[in-house]
Amino acid sequence: MHSISELKDIADDAIRNLSLHGEPYDLYDPVTYMLSLDAKRIRPVLTLAACELFHGDISEALPPAIGLEIFHNFTLLHDDIMDNAPLRRAQPTVHQKWSPNVALLSGDAMFVIAGQLMMKSPDRVLRSVLEIYHQTAIEVCEGQQLDMEFEKSSSVTVDDYIKMISLKTAVLPAACLKTGALIAGATDKQTRLIYDFGKNIGIAFQLMDDLLDVFGDGAKVGKVKGGDIVANKKTFLLIKAMELAKGVTINELQQLVAGTHPDKVERVTTIFEELGVRLLAEKEMEKYFYKALHCLKSIDVPEERKSVLEAFAGTLMKRES
Amino acid sequence: MHSISELKDIADDAIRNLSLHGEPYDLYDPVTYMLSLDAKRIRPVLTLAACELFHGDISEALPPAIGLEIFHNFTLLHDDIMDNAPLRRAQPTVHQKWSPNVALLSGDAMFVIAGQLMMKSPDRVLRSVLEIYHQTAIEVCEGQQLDMEFEKSSSVTVDDYIKMISLKTAVLPAACLKTGALIAGATDKQTRLIYDFGKNIGIAFQLMDDLLDVFGDGAKVGKVKGGDIVANKKTFLLIKAMELAKGVTINELQQLVAGTHPDKVERVTTIFEELGVRLLAEKEMEKYFYKALHCLKSIDVPEERKSVLEAFAGTLMKRES
Repeated sequence: MHSISELKDIADDAIRNLSLHGEPYDLYDPVTYMLSLDAKRIRPVLTLAACELFHGDISEALPPAIGLEIFHNFTLLHDDIMDNAPLRRAQPTVHQKWSPNVALLSGDAMFVIAGQLMMKSPDRVLRSVLEIYHQTAIEVCEGQQLDMEFEKSSSVTVDDYIKMISLKTAVLPAACLKTGALIAGATDKQTRLIYDFGKNIGIAFQLMDDLLDVFGDGAKVGKVKGGDIVANKKTFLLIKAMELAKGVTINELQQLVAGTHPDKVERVTTIFEELGVRLLAEKEMEKYFYKALHCLKSIDVPEERKSVLEAFAGTLMKRES
Repeated sequence: MHSISELKDIADDAIRNLSLHGEPYDLYDPVTYMLSLDAKRIRPVLTLAACELFHGDISEALPPAIGLEIFHNFTLLHDDIMDNAPLRRAQPTVHQKWSPNVALLSGDAMFVIAGQLMMKSPDRVLRSVLEIYHQTAIEVCEGQQLDMEFEKSSSVTVDDYIKMISLKTAVLPAACLKTGALIAGATDKQTRLIYDFGKNIGIAFQLMDDLLDVFGDGAKVGKVKGGDIVANKKTFLLIKAMELAKGVTINELQQLVAGTHPDKVERVTTIFEELGVRLLAEKEMEKYFYKALHCLKSIDVPEERKSVLEAFAGTLMKRES
C-alpha cells in the first residue's frame, strides 16, 4: 500500500504526462494552466486509496482517478466564471487571464477530457463507473445552482445548506472513493460504505472551507479572504448567525448582508465570533467527521488497511488551506 | 423502414417523454425550454436512419439518438452565450430569457444528460459508441474555438474554413450516423463510409447555412439576418469575397468589416452578389453534397435501403431555414 503523499505524486505525474498541448491554443492552454496550479489532488488520491483498500490494482484506477480530478477542475473553472472570482489557488482565474468565453469553452473541453479518462476504466466496470460519474456530475450541477439561488434567498435553513453542500461538494469525493472500490471489485456493501464515508468527509470538508474563508489565512487559502461574506453566501456560519442574532445585532447583520459596507467582512466576522457560530460550525464539522469515521470502521477489511484513509481524513480536518 | 418524418416523430416523442422537470427549476427549466423549441431533429433522425439502413433495431438506437440531439442543443446553448446571440429558433436564447450563469450551468447539465442517454447503448457497443461521442465532443469544442479565433483574424483561407466547419458542424452528423451503424452491427467499412457521408453532408449543410444567413428569409431561419456579417464571421462568402475583390471594392469591404456601419449587412451583401461569391458558395456546397452521395453509393447494401438517407440529404440541401 502507498502513503497519501506517494499517491499524490502518482496522480501529479499522471496529470503532467497527459500532454494536453496543441491547437487551438486558447482551448488547450487554459486546461494545462488550470491543471498545473498547485493542488492537493484529494480526489484522485481518494480513488487510488480506495482501490488499494480493497486490494485493487491502482494502475487500472489511475486514468479514472485523473478523470475525476479533471472533472473537479472543470467545475471550478465554470464556477469561477459564475462567481466572477478573481483568484483560484492564489493565481488569476482562467476567465481573468484569458476571457469568459475562453473559460467557458475550455471548461467544456475539460469535461470531455475527463469523460475520456473515465472511459479508460476496465470493461468489467465501465458501465458502473460511468453511472456513478454521470450521477455525480448532475448532482454537482444541481448543487451549484442551489448555491447561486441561496445567495439571493433569505430563508435558507441549515438543512437546505447541508443538502446543497452535499450535492455541490460532498458527492464527488464519495464518487471518487466508489470508483476506486468498483475497480478493485469491492462488494456492494463495501462500495456503499466507502461512498458514505466520502460523502460525510465531504460535508465536513466544506464546513472547514467555510470556516477557512472567514477565519483562515487568506494567503494560504489562495482566495480573497471573506469572499463568502462579500458574495452573501449562505454558509453554515451566516445561517446560524441569522438564527441566533437578536435586537440590534440582527438589524446590523441584515443591513450588512444587504449592503456593500467597506468593512463588511470585518464586521460580519466580529458578529460571527460574538454569537459563537464559529464554535457551532466546528461542532457540526466534527459531527460529520465522526459519521465518516464510523462508516470507515464498518467496512469489513482489516483495520490496518484503513489507516491511510483514516489519516488522510484527519489531515483534511486539520488543514490551513 | 420508417420515413424521415416518422423518424422525426419518434425522436420528438422520445424527447417529450424525457421528463426533465423538477428542482432546481432554474437548472432544468432552460433544458426543457431549449428542447421544446421547434427543431428539425436532424441528428437523431440520422442515427435512427443509419440504424435501419443496416437492419438494426431502432429502439436500441433511440436513447443515444436523443443523447446526440441533447448534446447538439448543449453546444448551441453555450455557443449562444459566447456569440451573445439574442435569438435561437426564432425564440429568445436562454441567456437572454434567464441569465448567462443559468445558461452556462444548464448547458453543463444538458451535457451530462446527453452522456447519460449515450450510456443507454447496448453493452456490446457501449465503448465504441462512447468513443466516437467523446471524440466528436472534443472536435466540436475545437471547431467553436477556431470559429471565434477566425472572427478576429484576417488571414483565414478557404481550407482553414472548411477545417473549422468540419469540426464545429460536420463531425456531429457523421458521428450520429456512425452511432446508428454501430448499434446495428455494421462492418468497419460500412461504418467508415456512413461517417464520411455524414461529414460531407455536414460541410454542405454549413455552407447552406452561411448562404441562408445572408440570402435567406430571416423569419424562416429564426435568427437575425446577416448575423454572420455583423459578427465578422469568416464564412466561405467573406473569405472568397476578400480573395476576389480589387480596387475600391476591397477597400470598401475591408472598411465595412472593420467598422459598424449601419448598412453593413446590406452593403456587404451587395458586394457578395457583385463578386459572384454566392454562386461560388453554391458550387462548393454541391461539391461536398456529391462527395457525400458517392460515399453513400459505395456502401454495400441494396440501393432501395439508401433512399431514405438520400432523400433526406436532398431535403437538407433545398431547405429555406
